[in-house]
Amino acid sequence: MHLGLVGLGKMGGNMRTRLRSGGITVTGYDRNPDVTDVDSLQALVEELPSPKVVWVMVPAGDITRATVEDLLELLGEGDVIVDGGNSRWTDDEKHAALAAEKGIGFVDCGVSGGVWGLENGYALMAGGDAHDIAKVQPVFDVLKPEGESGFVHAGRVGAGHFSKMVHNGIEYAMMQAYAEGFELLEKAELVENVTDVFDSWRVGTVVRSWLLDLLVKALQDDPGLSKIRGYAEDSGEGRWTVEAAIDHAVPAPTIAASLFARFVSRQDESPAMQAVAAMRQQFGGHAVQAAEETGHSPADLDADPS
Amino acid sequence: MHLGLVGLGKMGGNMRTRLRSGGITVTGYDRNPDVTDVDSLQALVEELPSPKVVWVMVPAGDITRATVEDLLELLGEGDVIVDGGNSRWTDDEKHAALAAEKGIGFVDCGVSGGVWGLENGYALMAGGDAHDIAKVQPVFDVLKPEGESGFVHAGRVGAGHFSKMVHNGIEYAMMQAYAEGFELLEKAELVENVTDVFDSWRVGTVVRSWLLDLLVKALQDDPGLSKIRGYAEDSGEGRWTVEAAIDHAVPAPTIAASLFARFVSRQDESPAMQAVAAMRQQFGGHAVQAAEETGHSPADLDADPS
Amino acid sequence: MHLGLVGLGKMGGNMRTRLRSGGITVTGYDRNPDVTDVDSLQALVEELPSPKVVWVMVPAGDITRATVEDLLELLGEGDVIVDGGNSRWTDDEKHAALAAEKGIGFVDCGVSGGVWGLENGYALMAGGDAHDIAKVQPVFDVLKPEGESGFVHAGRVGAGHFSKMVHNGIEYAMMQAYAEGFELLEKAELVENVTDVFDSWRVGTVVRSWLLDLLVKALQDDPGLSKIRGYAEDSGEGRWTVEAAIDHAVPAPTIAASLFARFVSRQDESPAMQAVAAMRQQFGGHAVQAAEETGHSPADLDADPS
Amino acid sequence: MHLGLVGLGKMGGNMRTRLRSGGITVTGYDRNPDVTDVDSLQALVEELPSPKVVWVMVPAGDITRATVEDLLELLGEGDVIVDGGNSRWTDDEKHAALAAEKGIGFVDCGVSGGVWGLENGYALMAGGDAHDIAKVQPVFDVLKPEGESGFVHAGRVGAGHFSKMVHNGIEYAMMQAYAEGFELLEKAELVENVTDVFDSWRVGTVVRSWLLDLLVKALQDDPGLSKIRGYAEDSGEGRWTVEAAIDHAVPAPTIAASLFARFVSRQDESPAMQAVAAMRQQFGGHAVQAAEETGHSPADLDADPS
Repeated sequence: MHLGLVGLGKMGGNMRTRLRSGGITVTGYDRNPDVTDVDSLQALVEELPSPKVVWVMVPAGDITRATVEDLLELLGEGDVIVDGGNSRWTDDEKHAALAAEKGIGFVDCGVSGGVWGLENGYALMAGGDAHDIAKVQPVFDVLKPEGESGFVHAGRVGAGHFSKMVHNGIEYAMMQAYAEGFELLEKAELVENVTDVFDSWRVGTVVRSWLLDLLVKALQDDPGLSKIRGYAEDSGEGRWTVEAAIDHAVPAPTIAASLFARFVSRQDESPAMQAVAAMRQQFGGHAVQAAEETGHSPADLDADPS
Repeated sequence: MHLGLVGLGKMGGNMRTRLRSGGITVTGYDRNPDVTDVDSLQALVEELPSPKVVWVMVPAGDITRATVEDLLELLGEGDVIVDGGNSRWTDDEKHAALAAEKGIGFVDCGVSGGVWGLENGYALMAGGDAHDIAKVQPVFDVLKPEGESGFVHAGRVGAGHFSKMVHNGIEYAMMQAYAEGFELLEKAELVENVTDVFDSWRVGTVVRSWLLDLLVKALQDDPGLSKIRGYAEDSGEGRWTVEAAIDHAVPAPTIAASLFARFVSRQDESPAMQAVAAMRQQFGGHAVQAAEETGHSPADLDADPS
Repeated sequence: MHLGLVGLGKMGGNMRTRLRSGGITVTGYDRNPDVTDVDSLQALVEELPSPKVVWVMVPAGDITRATVEDLLELLGEGDVIVDGGNSRWTDDEKHAALAAEKGIGFVDCGVSGGVWGLENGYALMAGGDAHDIAKVQPVFDVLKPEGESGFVHAGRVGAGHFSKMVHNGIEYAMMQAYAEGFELLEKAELVENVTDVFDSWRVGTVVRSWLLDLLVKALQDDPGLSKIRGYAEDSGEGRWTVEAAIDHAVPAPTIAASLFARFVSRQDESPAMQAVAAMRQQFGGHAVQAAEETGHSPADLDADPS
Repeated sequence: MHLGLVGLGKMGGNMRTRLRSGGITVTGYDRNPDVTDVDSLQALVEELPSPKVVWVMVPAGDITRATVEDLLELLGEGDVIVDGGNSRWTDDEKHAALAAEKGIGFVDCGVSGGVWGLENGYALMAGGDAHDIAKVQPVFDVLKPEGESGFVHAGRVGAGHFSKMVHNGIEYAMMQAYAEGFELLEKAELVENVTDVFDSWRVGTVVRSWLLDLLVKALQDDPGLSKIRGYAEDSGEGRWTVEAAIDHAVPAPTIAASLFARFVSRQDESPAMQAVAAMRQQFGGHAVQAAEETGHSPADLDADPS
């Protein structure tokens, strides 16, 4: 099998390495001349035998769309494009329709595993027609972890990215769950060594998981996490999960709460809480200043004279 | 009617003024010599005709308990203590039991109205036996706003403070609701004058309320609320509402969310979000640094290679 | 002023009545022959003097779009279409662009007031160019409540519906806030007459509002609310508010929670809670059945042996 | 080592088996004559060599308190009581103080592992003085899973149950996270085989965990989970976690949300949503009935004329 791979960043670069180790011939293209195998998309496509399979591993949105459109000019009937990035499933439906006009197959594939995937394999969730999936299967077989799990043909086009999106939504809420537990253990000051408690949970408990393993590793490197700021970006997938939940009238309180917690973590000032403070000031009569003026009366200590 | 009033701070002081304007004789006691009418609790009690009615208006918790205990030494059978502070309803039950041992009546009364109560009257929610309530009724009648509403005998001892507690829980969530709407209008930048939009809602809309009036006042004083920090204290009553909800298996998502938002507003750093950031760093492979090293590849821009 | 009004349902019909009482000539069109003034949209347009102003008051989405498209065929340069329905603000931008191609003005107007608007007036939030707004102003002046508030030119096209959308999001969370308080008062059984407590809050409290007035009315009609099911639809606007919050990274925990509560209220069975129950069964060892089998041992009563 | 074990239900019975397999002599007592080794607590205590160590494994609350009090009458200086049940950490502090009056040691121990603990070992989180812990250490060593993790001396008395409580709070939110993802995958109908998607996540993904393994097992036994009701009990520990979070001003939105979801799952009718429905009916003008009466007008379809 000979694969074309577009995008050789942290994810794509590692995937090329794993694929080659697994016996797949890979021609990679990247704008960065230090890592690319060929000078252009066209050169990449020309190197591939038919049916040509090109895996796109670039940022979701505009860059993915432009790359797919470029490939549609270069590929022909029976070829297959795989979008392995973090695209929204609704983009897949559009891209597949464009590809279908030219008889080109389209497969979307959610990829999980982060920087650990190079060694452990990548979990793969694919969407598309069975005959297109079949053309990519040798690639999936090398990328995925060893064993029975780790790859699923989830359904029609979009089902792969939809599954990965839900995966990430769940991931957000799981991370938030551990995070709330961490904060409570730290604040309560009943537990002497919070890192040791988390470490003890790694075996035999209901909450054992890979994320817990990672958190313990982080805590052991930096007990109390004093070296890291409480600032968390969110990728599109958490947002899309809540939007999809709303579309289908699915209550998603923990996923939404974990998304909102990330929003808050990035704010220097909260307009909402300014509004709350402003309302309290209005009905409470400028509590702080009044307390300073009138002095000793116990009722002045009353924080919330609502 | 001649009332003893303990605690002449912002709330108690205003209440004394309103009561005297309404024809009630008031003897007030406060530790602050500038505002007190008498030198001691004992002096206050001695001035009152029997059955003596003493209204306690001091901070909830230790100070209220100490004041009630002191009064139990000074009062006698048939007298009545009213706790008008923000006590937890469970404290009322304890205080009432102590009072009952001496034949002294106990009434708990939640008071709402803030600094506006002096002029507009205070909304009152009272708990206790009907015959004790009756002894305080002339006081209630002057304190409450004009008209039919504004006073309720809510039930047995504790029911007054419980009602006031629930009132405050609702208040938290209502304030948070307006606050979220404010932040969204500010951030979306579709609306030119957010203050005007809030102002327009004061008449004819479903969301019109006194809190909205206050928010509009605050926005008109300080458009964009740039002069106020997004920092909100919480009194005990929001917390107790959520705890009571948990006790009775009542889902209280908006009240809990508004309480948590206040907690967050007071944090300089969020341990929970430090934990989230630490986990992301673990599975994402130190995303920022890696991106700087490898340079131009589009996939490096990928924020969340999970 | 002579207005064309499309859609004479509950809202549109009442608005026609109020407009006519206020001195506006109204020609109304509806598919329902019992309420329409003319036989067709074309007939309606022909009756209007130039510049023609047509107010569209039909369901958001497909019907509004079709109506706007029909009107664009019938109107000409300098005329104005007003969309007074519950359209998403993003639809307004599309409709305004289509209208602009023909020199037709477009104004979006969020309308609040429900069935009470006929008598009390409707709160109006309008978006669009000032010269288009000016052509509709006599209509706004009659529809709005008396006094200074109740109408706002919120900003460019879309700003009116965006403001109304945020209004409704706030409304959801306010309703949920009262609802949680109601449930807690009912369940705690400390308060004897929950209706009386809510009624007492109508004057002098921080939570007084029009929604509270409505809730008290409902409670007085049906104490305990035993005649109504806990089933709540949601219009699009609550969903759009959360989606807009996500778009702008605005934390909206109470609005999202109140939306999710409505979703839950409509479910006969919760797949999520089936999954929770299934996981508990797996790690707890079929707790219920096991308890029946082994009988008397106290530890068997333990509900959650995690 | 010879241990006294009180409570031989599902948890205690399995622990006795595991301890005996590991070389610990165990005398067990239970009210159930079919499983007990001795006739009374007194007989159990008499069999033990000094210093006597008695592990209490009975339901939290009244039964644990009564058992501890009975043991305090039977034990003497230097002996140790271990509470391995799901007690609240605040109970531990009370029990330890009572024990200390008689020179008896007290150790609290949170135990995780459910029915799987017999084979895999139990994760243990212990609180107490080091010299008391040392007396129980041989028992901990057999109960815990093999390997380095699975046991922690978390801190002073209470720290063990506090850690276990936080563990359970995290567990609630993790379960809810998977549950929300499950419901979304089921409802969206993009994924053909939801069980296969969950199964594929078991290897290589960020969300892999033991809870995921259990959910996959449940889904494979009962695809779509049609055989199980969406009804979830909650043990005290989820509630206590939220209460402790409130005590320490720790935002805990996902843990609270998962607790509330369980509350909702057990309600036949939601008073809160009855109140929401009642308010909507008030301002919407009895929407359903009105729609039936007026018939065909499009605006009548409008669900939320607010």
